[in-house]
Amino acid sequence: MNDLSNQECVVCRADSPRIFVADSQEYMDVLKDWSINQLDRIDKLYRRYTFTNFSVALEFTNKVGDLAEVEDHHPVLVTEWGAVEVYWWTHVIHGLHRNDFVMAARCDKIFSQSDE
Amino acid sequence: MNDLSNQECVVCRADSPRIFVADSQEYMDVLKDWSINQLDRIDKLYRRYTFTNFSVALEFTNKVGDLAEVEDHHPVLVTEWGAVEVYWWTHVIHGLHRNDFVMAARCDKIFSQSDE
Repeated sequence: MNDLSNQECVVCRADSPRIFVADSQEYMDVLKDWSINQLDRIDKLYRRYTFTNFSVALEFTNKVGDLAEVEDHHPVLVTEWGAVEVYWWTHVIHGLHRNDFVMAARCDKIFSQSDE
Repeated sequence: MNDLSNQECVVCRADSPRIFVADSQEYMDVLKDWSINQLDRIDKLYRRYTFTNFSVALEFTNKVGDLAEVEDHHPVLVTEWGAVEVYWWTHVIHGLHRNDFVMAARCDKIFSQSDE
């Protein structure tokens, strides 16, 4: 599971399997700075990344945005001075798919490779 | 007041004058798609812009980010597939300053000049 960021995302359909909180431990053991928050009755993966100013925060937003476009799977990105909050979930299943955990791990990889 | 977007932002200090909801009507008459929302006991200017996909939404986020850097006054930008939500307020006065209304008007100008 440590190589989560290297795993592939798959095409997701309405009948694709959801991952519930009770079954998420093996993922969350790797995604140590993430939590699962239920918002609008939907489980969402959440992490707040911190930065030293606005421009590096926005740079991170753009890197995650590039990743999202490549995989055609898009998060909510809350950009402010010194921080970016990222929310991942899969709209079509109204919850979390394995893809979301993979994307979260890839965000961590982008962050670890940044200058911050 | 129609030329709000062309007005200058000024340096803001802790004793700079706040603009309260009761005094905001002349600004809100111009900022027709904005509302003032009280979040965490702080009045914040809010608008949701909609777009046809993720990349044009992120492009708008970047344009507003560029403006924020020029003025050294930064919003919260919530970017998602097809939408950007913008929140303006002035941290140092824990509320709304005239600058925030100017920046909101400039966001509208950026949006009106985009391809959407």
